[in-house]
Amino acid sequence: MTPGAPIGRRPGTESSRADLIAAARTLFAEMGYDKASVRAIATKAKVDPALVYHFFGSKEGLLKATLEFPFDPAATLSVAADHSGDEGSALLRQVLQIWTVPLIRQQFVAMLRTGMSHDHAREVLRDVLTQQLVGRLAQRLEGPDAEFRAALVATQVAGLALARFIVGIEAIAQRSDEDIVAAVGPTLTRYLHGDIGQTPA
Amino acid sequence: MTPGAPIGRRPGTESSRADLIAAARTLFAEMGYDKASVRAIATKAKVDPALVYHFFGSKEGLLKATLEFPFDPAATLSVAADHSGDEGSALLRQVLQIWTVPLIRQQFVAMLRTGMSHDHAREVLRDVLTQQLVGRLAQRLEGPDAEFRAALVATQVAGLALARFIVGIEAIAQRSDEDIVAAVGPTLTRYLHGDIGQTPA
Repeated sequence: MTPGAPIGRRPGTESSRADLIAAARTLFAEMGYDKASVRAIATKAKVDPALVYHFFGSKEGLLKATLEFPFDPAATLSVAADHSGDEGSALLRQVLQIWTVPLIRQQFVAMLRTGMSHDHAREVLRDVLTQQLVGRLAQRLEGPDAEFRAALVATQVAGLALARFIVGIEAIAQRSDEDIVAAVGPTLTRYLHGDIGQTPA
Repeated sequence: MTPGAPIGRRPGTESSRADLIAAARTLFAEMGYDKASVRAIATKAKVDPALVYHFFGSKEGLLKATLEFPFDPAATLSVAADHSGDEGSALLRQVLQIWTVPLIRQQFVAMLRTGMSHDHAREVLRDVLTQQLVGRLAQRLEGPDAEFRAALVATQVAGLALARFIVGIEAIAQRSDEDIVAAVGPTLTRYLHGDIGQTPA
């Protein structure tokens, strides 16, 4: 035990919280959001069901926690922002790097399954993606189309991740990172800062 | 009854086949490919389990049938090919039109859920997407990068469909078709025929 760490372990530690998220991620993905009960999730996590309300406020709060991005997109974006010459390619290199972690891929599959399992879960997935991904990227862009530009980037990155890391379409999965960056980087750069055909309002 | 139609209804009609696909689509999506038994699917479809083998050869054959595209991408592509001036935009207009049908969206959600439900289902989804979508589009392109180009188009279209029709990211879902075409059409045109940064082999 680390010197200075609390002696003994109370219910309600960070470890219980993480256990609940892991159990919920599995059961939401397997059974769908609607059918996975709070009791079943707590039993799987080996914690008291009351802790779901303690940590997350509600079953919906727990759902949001399972749908959170397995990495911090804002950190990725700020690294990419340093390469102002070709921001699209820099951003894409970061994204490709993150996806090589198997846990990220597993969590994304669970996220997609949960999001597709129930209309309400899909709405929460939409909110999470809009706030955590599109919203944060849009903050770094300028002009009335900032959110549209950020969302366009998200569509291309999501489709690419699906083909390269989740479904494994060979023509995409077998290419080197640099081939992908050469083909797709200019798309992202145009979506971020280029002409996307909008007429001024 | 239509004059000339067969009198009475044998087991093994087209209607039983469609009922089996519909039942399998629901159960694979709800329970996952592995857990949905042939017997349970046949019971739901109200047909004899033997018909699964009659029509599809195996449970895997039935899986493939549920993952088939709800529309014919080759037909879409051939329409788009008539607009040789800006093929990317023409292709995209067709795709946006097809996705307005609610049944297409529902089937795509089921397809994605089934594909994520089991490693084997994901492999079958990969094969179906590769053959039905990437392969057919690649046949219409030229050069050593034909398949890579076709797959790049698929990544952008898939991510866009996910954001606009499935998850409903507002910044994408609320735009007019023409805004989307103006922003994304040039991406597809470049992937189809433009410079994607490949050096000659």
